[in-house]
Formats: sequence, C-alpha cells, structure tokens
Amino acid sequence: MKCTARAYAIQGLVKYHGLKNAKLRIPFHDSISVCMRSLDTVTTVEARNGLPRDGIRINGTVPTAGEEARARMVIDKLRELAGEKTRVRVESRNANVKGKGLGFSASGFAALGLAASKALGLSLEPRELSEVVRLGAGSAARSLVGGFSIWYANRKGRSYAEQLASATSIGLRTLIVPIPSSIKTDKAHADVLTSPFFRARLAYLRGVLQRMRRAIGRKDVSEICRLAEVDTLNLHAITMTGRLETILVSPLSVRIMDEVRRLREEEGVPVWYSLDTGPSVFVNTTPRAASKVARRIRTLAGNVLSSDPAGPAEIISRHLF
Amino acid sequence: MKCTARAYAIQGLVKYHGLKNAKLRIPFHDSISVCMRSLDTVTTVEARNGLPRDGIRINGTVPTAGEEARARMVIDKLRELAGEKTRVRVESRNANVKGKGLGFSASGFAALGLAASKALGLSLEPRELSEVVRLGAGSAARSLVGGFSIWYANRKGRSYAEQLASATSIGLRTLIVPIPSSIKTDKAHADVLTSPFFRARLAYLRGVLQRMRRAIGRKDVSEICRLAEVDTLNLHAITMTGRLETILVSPLSVRIMDEVRRLREEEGVPVWYSLDTGPSVFVNTTPRAASKVARRIRTLAGNVLSSDPAGPAEIISRHLF
Repeated sequence: MKCTARAYAIQGLVKYHGLKNAKLRIPFHDSISVCMRSLDTVTTVEARNGLPRDGIRINGTVPTAGEEARARMVIDKLRELAGEKTRVRVESRNANVKGKGLGFSASGFAALGLAASKALGLSLEPRELSEVVRLGAGSAARSLVGGFSIWYANRKGRSYAEQLASATSIGLRTLIVPIPSSIKTDKAHADVLTSPFFRARLAYLRGVLQRMRRAIGRKDVSEICRLAEVDTLNLHAITMTGRLETILVSPLSVRIMDEVRRLREEEGVPVWYSLDTGPSVFVNTTPRAASKVARRIRTLAGNVLSSDPAGPAEIISRHLF
Repeated sequence: MKCTARAYAIQGLVKYHGLKNAKLRIPFHDSISVCMRSLDTVTTVEARNGLPRDGIRINGTVPTAGEEARARMVIDKLRELAGEKTRVRVESRNANVKGKGLGFSASGFAALGLAASKALGLSLEPRELSEVVRLGAGSAARSLVGGFSIWYANRKGRSYAEQLASATSIGLRTLIVPIPSSIKTDKAHADVLTSPFFRARLAYLRGVLQRMRRAIGRKDVSEICRLAEVDTLNLHAITMTGRLETILVSPLSVRIMDEVRRLREEEGVPVWYSLDTGPSVFVNTTPRAASKVARRIRTLAGNVLSSDPAGPAEIISRHLF
C-alpha cells in the first residue's frame, strides 16, 4: 500500500535540549512547541512485498548513513508493531527553505511515521505514534500532534506528545528568517551536560513550563512569545558554555534580534524573537502587526517567510511517486 | 601641586561581573585581567588652594553627572586620607579608540587615583591605592597594579588588587577590534542576580580562577587565552539570561569570533577570542602568529589595534595642561 502524509516543522517555545537516553530519545525535561504552516514536509511511503530492499530518498537524494539509520529506527518499530517485514520505498520532501534550526527533522519524522504506519496497515493513536516518531527525532512527537503541543519527558513511564491548543485558536503570526549553518544538532544535544549551567536550566524549566502552559491556556500570545524569547537566551547560554562552545547565532541572527528589540522597545510593536538550535530566526508577532514587522525584517534579510501555526500531521492524497 | 599619571585599560581574563556591595564596589568573586599597552589613559590632576570648585574634564568635555560622582568618590577618599580639602582640576584623555568593553573605566580611575594621590601629597602602597580606585570602577584596582593581576573580592576583609605576573614575562599579543555599543556596564552589573545561572557561575569560578592562576604562574599563554575564551562565553551566558536580556555581541563580534575559531580549528593557529561587557573583541595570540592573525582579522574589521601587555599605572612628566 502507498500512503502520503504531510507534517509541519516546529518552532520550539520551551525548547528541548539534551537527551537522558540518546538511543530511545528520552529528554531531560518536557518541552513545548508550535507547528509552522510554511515549513512542511510531505512524505510518501509504499510498503510492497517483493522490493529488494528499503529505499529512502530525502529531497531527491540518498540520505546520509546517520539519517538512514534514524529513519530505519522508526520504520522498523512500525514493522514490529504491524508484525510485518514488508520492505518500503520512501520519498520525502521538505518545503524549499534552506536554514538550520527550522525544525525539519520534526516534520520529516512525523510525516514518515504517519505515512509508514498507514502504509503498513496500522492505525495508531496519536499518542502512541508520537512515541514511535520520537525515536527518529524527539521534536517529531510534537510535530505529529500539531498546533501548540507538549512533549512529556516522562508521564507515567511514557514519553509522548499531546496537543495543548489547536493551530487556529491562538492569534500568532511568525516571520521566519532561514539562515544556514554547519551546526550538528545531535552533537549539541550530546554536549549539553558539559555546561556548568545545565542543572540550573533544569530548575528554571519547571517554572517556565508551567507559565507557558498557562499562557497557552489563556491564549495570551504576548506572553507565549515573551517566554519563548527568554527561553531562547537560556538555551543559547547552555550551548555556549558546553565543551564545544557552540555559538548558535550568526551575524544576521544578531542583526535581526537587535531590530526586533528596537521595534518592541522604541516603537511599542508586539514582537519577539525565538531561535532553536541554529541561527535561523522566528520573529513572533500578532497578525495585526505582522505586515509592519515583515517590512522591517525584509530590509535586513532577503528571504523571509510568513507563517501561521499549523495543525497535526495529516494524510493527503497526492503521492510523491 | 600638579601630577600626571598614565594607566592601561584591562582585558578581563576571568571576568568580573556583579557587585555584592554596589556603593563600595565589592564584587562577588575574584577576577583576573591583563593590562593593554595600546589602551592607555593619561590624567593630570592639579591640587591648588583657591580653586572655586573641582573641575573635571574627560576627553575634552564635561563628564556626565554619574561619571563626575564616581570621580568624586575617589578624589574625596584621597582628600580624606590626606586630611586636606584642597580643590582639584582634572583633565583625562583616553587613547583615541572608540568601542565598548575596552576597559577604559579601569585605566581612567587608575590614572585619576594615582595622579590625584600624588597631587595631594600622598604616597600610598599600590595595594592601598587599589582599594581607593576600586570605588570609581572595580577593574581600576587591577589597572593600577598592572601586568597580569588579580582583584580579590575579600582577602582578610579587604578588596584589593595584586600583580600575578609582569607585563613582559608572558608572550601574549592581542589584536583589539573596538566596536561601539550603547550597553551600560553598570546596568548589566546590577542585573546579574536575575540570571538563573548566576549561582552556578560562582561555583564554576572557583575552579577557573585556580586554573588561570596556575596558567599565569607557568606562563602558559595558550591556556591563559583558552580559559579567557571559555570565561567569555560563561559571562555572556549570564548577561543574556538576566532580566535585561543583554546580548553583548554585535554582528561584527560574531563574525570575528567565527573567524578566530576557523583559524584555530582549520589552520592550527594559536588564537582565541575574548570579550568583556561589550561587543569589542580581544583576539589573543602569540607574538609569532600575530601578523598572520592580524591580516585575517583586518579583512573583517577596518579598525584593529595590536597590543602587548602593559605594566602598572605610572607617573609621567608631560602634563595635559
């Protein structure tokens, strides 16, 4: 059977960093994100007897050994659940946006998991499927359930995602500035424990997770964006002080962060920045202020995407092959 | 009497941030720095009966009320020690370098303190005078004693500076990239306790201060520079995560930091960056590698100064007026 799914990359709001169990991708703490409609991945999976081997292509090319191994973790787990050994052909395409820290590993593994599960004849609950796609990329769990969502590190022994608010229920508009970088997210995750501040981050997270949940609960877009900005700096402080001395920002990121702050402090525009594990910048604002903010950000960066929040991963009818 | 002193701005190596007692400028922890020969301040002080009032000029202009109050803290303390009420005329000039985070408040108050103490007929030991200039700017204590020096937060109830190694004993060459900024150091110092990482920084400092002292003791320039780079990121992590969300770097700082790292990791050049509380970058290297490093940094920044370490504040014979 052939199935195609679309999923949306995530913007971290309370960002995930560091894995307690790297193989099972179990994090140290809960994390919260929102899916981005302009950053989608479409993945077609065909499960067919008689295929000589699994065949995986990402954006038209053969994946690296590491990427392939991660994809296989998810596919193998689904085959195990289906009780089948059928080989698969996989084609996956991201939105044509080049940048680091845009959360495409989340949408990639969410789309793969949903398409492959259907192609193998499975019908898993989102919660259960989120545990499977987590094996490929932690944030895929949140991409799968969509909207504003939380990924629990450990909820009665399970690590899965759950939607907190739908994509359409909160008036958030994001201007995305994709910026390339050679940073390896997996290396950064492994380095996290070498920061002298990591334990203090875990303590800070307890409070901020609660505040973010409450802000999402009352649909307070300003507070959501403000907390995401604060958490950005907290996360970057951790990566900078690890043994690898990872500086996530690029000169362009700093220019945009400065401009966002100027807009907010000097012109009273409701706008905040947020960066994940890379230099790309999410500029968060309200639908009303978005066009003003976009004009200003476009004076600094050639490539700016506007995005609404997006819903969960979904099955679509148009296959890639 | 008229006296003139020259003092040298400092580059923080284990950087000072945050004051336990803001009025007396007593810090939370010891700090270590090195004076920079290319960043000097010359200050002439004339103590004369019959002056209608104190008159202070910095770089040819009247200081702000805040600057004047700080200068007066030092002058008044010296008048108290001298048992005199003589009014003074002060002229102070920094090297013609514009940038934030270059440590000129250190050289400014060290030169002021030395010139004023002599003009008032005092002959204080460096240790004692370092306690007085500390009242104007904490780092002035280290600028006063010169070379590679430590400022003790609390040594048997006193907070003073002491030289650890002379300027000429360690083969360090620094390329300084001055970058302007509107950051207010005093505001950043006051914000330090709001970082969730500040307590963890204090714990980290115990180890790094000891390692830096040992590196200076064995004249290990690579290790001195490496530890200063690590401490830079640790300090910036603190300022970023305080309530003011102070991002000290500018786009140009990031470009230079990236280039330094490339030079080191891809070409094996012994070079490290260091930034104080501002975007200006100190690029630390060996005298041997300095010309190669300078060529590369000059492709990124128009204004690059080369500097050797400098000695203590000193009395000179050429007055400014």
